[in-house]
Amino acid sequence: MKENYAISDVNKVRQLREKARYDRATVHAILDAGLVAHVAFVQDRSPVVVPMIYGRVDETLYLHGARKSRAIRLLERTDRACLNVTLLDGIVLARSAFNSSMNYRSVTVFGTPQLVDSHDARLEALRVISEQSMPGRWDELRAPHEREIKMTGVIRLDIESASAKISDGMPDDEDEDYDIPIWAGVLPLESSFTELLGDDRLIDGVAPSAVVQGLQRRKL
Amino acid sequence: MKENYAISDVNKVRQLREKARYDRATVHAILDAGLVAHVAFVQDRSPVVVPMIYGRVDETLYLHGARKSRAIRLLERTDRACLNVTLLDGIVLARSAFNSSMNYRSVTVFGTPQLVDSHDARLEALRVISEQSMPGRWDELRAPHEREIKMTGVIRLDIESASAKISDGMPDDEDEDYDIPIWAGVLPLESSFTELLGDDRLIDGVAPSAVVQGLQRRKL
Repeated sequence: MKENYAISDVNKVRQLREKARYDRATVHAILDAGLVAHVAFVQDRSPVVVPMIYGRVDETLYLHGARKSRAIRLLERTDRACLNVTLLDGIVLARSAFNSSMNYRSVTVFGTPQLVDSHDARLEALRVISEQSMPGRWDELRAPHEREIKMTGVIRLDIESASAKISDGMPDDEDEDYDIPIWAGVLPLESSFTELLGDDRLIDGVAPSAVVQGLQRRKL
Repeated sequence: MKENYAISDVNKVRQLREKARYDRATVHAILDAGLVAHVAFVQDRSPVVVPMIYGRVDETLYLHGARKSRAIRLLERTDRACLNVTLLDGIVLARSAFNSSMNYRSVTVFGTPQLVDSHDARLEALRVISEQSMPGRWDELRAPHEREIKMTGVIRLDIESASAKISDGMPDDEDEDYDIPIWAGVLPLESSFTELLGDDRLIDGVAPSAVVQGLQRRKL
């Protein structure tokens, strides 16, 4: 498999091209760091975008939802979906509004969604999705009931085309603006997990496992 | 103006209906708390979703980009766009994978994008967008150059239809699962700004203003 996604009209980054990346390693790293994807599809010629959790194995993304949900029924039928995962890393405070911007890591994926039919493939996809947001938790939970697997629609989206865009620098101001006596730089933005809140039906003496404590310390 | 957006086939929340909100106050509060929107449109019958910063005034959202960018040129031409802002608040760690989920605040907006033509309206929209992510900063920056305003495409999206979806609870497990000796609850997720990083061309003695310090302390 080639190191880079082929550049085509579909995935070519047209603005701020110097921030574009087409290598699989970068695209995968951003996808793996995200918790939510924004998935777009066309319904009655109109665009719809919905936030969905997801998981990745190699060049395949998995999405899920209630089997009868609009998103799953539409993704099942359409031959074209687009998905974006964006992680915001900070605000770039330049000396002008024009040069102010955000730092971010962003990936856009294009592909043909397919409903996953087989029971075993569906179960494996559910594990992959679960492990994306809760690594290690799957094996601690009770096994899914057949009813639950049946009620869940799983979509497989093979990455046909993708690009990443990364912005992580300091302001790039106009030459003459550096003489303006104003503070400029970056205000970094961090997402982190805080204190675990147990529900009020915990069994006495049941504490968060090492896996759960690992989730809490996870860097996003 | 009515307190709620009218419920139609376009904005009706079909899954987890108990989490749906249609009141303008809730929709506005989520939009105002966000830093990035995911904007979907149709290009050559295919869906495209791009992250964009935005700003809101009453029932109008403003988006911007390079005047010649694909997003602006397509939004200018299309009569239908959909935009979603999602804020993740935590992971709901239930006793089964099926009942595990996320806590979030999410808004979906539908409307007809329009290119903003007039110079003054464009300048005002740029101020609104700037103030969304950097409240108070606009007045500290040098005024935009005419060239910069010309190079920027501004899209006005009046909110024709919208819905919010809020999930903020503890796990809702199957009755029999409460007997499983496993920890369950919520792992809250917080986004916060960290330490300001000045660029290396700051003029000696120029410190972050009260406005910039306010940005740093801002709760997201």
